[in-house]
Amino acid sequence: MTQTATQAETKSFDVTFECLATNAGKMRTDMTATMTAPDQQSFSLATDEGRFHGGDGSAPPPLALFAGGLASCLVTQLRAFSKRLRIPAGEITVSARLHWRGHQTGRDPYTTEPVGFELDIDLNSDAPVADQLALIEAAKKGCFIEQTLARENHIAHRLRAGSDWITA
Amino acid sequence: MTQTATQAETKSFDVTFECLATNAGKMRTDMTATMTAPDQQSFSLATDEGRFHGGDGSAPPPLALFAGGLASCLVTQLRAFSKRLRIPAGEITVSARLHWRGHQTGRDPYTTEPVGFELDIDLNSDAPVADQLALIEAAKKGCFIEQTLARENHIAHRLRAGSDWITA
Repeated sequence: MTQTATQAETKSFDVTFECLATNAGKMRTDMTATMTAPDQQSFSLATDEGRFHGGDGSAPPPLALFAGGLASCLVTQLRAFSKRLRIPAGEITVSARLHWRGHQTGRDPYTTEPVGFELDIDLNSDAPVADQLALIEAAKKGCFIEQTLARENHIAHRLRAGSDWITA
Repeated sequence: MTQTATQAETKSFDVTFECLATNAGKMRTDMTATMTAPDQQSFSLATDEGRFHGGDGSAPPPLALFAGGLASCLVTQLRAFSKRLRIPAGEITVSARLHWRGHQTGRDPYTTEPVGFELDIDLNSDAPVADQLALIEAAKKGCFIEQTLARENHIAHRLRAGSDWITA
């Protein structure tokens, strides 16, 4: 990145992931999640449901991955920006609470909605509270997942129908 | 659930998770994600960054968990509602593409925004396309993560300051 002390240029960068998820028939889903930019790296993940929901409890449920992604994304930005902003932090803990509600009519498929998300942050820092708040503010803006949750997203779906893909 | 053939009552249910995330100083974050309702179950998760970003590559990055949560949540609802709606599905695959953009000015902490999310669904089903589309529609509405992404969420942050928690 080219910059001078007096004028810093703004540059944009793309971060892209792909995830291929396969479900053979029960509740377990096996996945390969691949970062495709800026680096290329693949990871194996799996989810399952508990026995009560017809699964085998062989892996965390999808919402556990979501909760972990949200909490760790903020933690990671707090750590990275602590260094960049020179606001020291000790062991960082984030305690997240996530709440959804489902609505079930008879045997119809249920519908769902988010109720609330709360994140309690302990920076274990001796820095002035104002600096700690500034660090959190920077981390929120740099947290890909928080910025996603903060707005309405359109998710595009397609269904494979023979050799065609049709909008779903 | 009490219901009759002629009139089905709507009941609501809460789904809650907690996640405690700890970062000791490098980029790795260790977590315990706990479903607290309707069941109680805990899972260990971890994230890390690659070496290029100052991590050790010991675990997937936060966005891989997010991608996996999104894809598997939809897959799980497709499977569950396939049974409930009696729309048969074979091996289900969801191929997800997730795109974010970051903006970096000089050495300032970068800011981020979502660009787009695409999910390609293959139900490997002989059911009429209209039925398959109906199944996808039900799964979208029942997918906690899709319903979260589809709206603007307020995320509440608090910072520990001594023995107090202050709004961040």
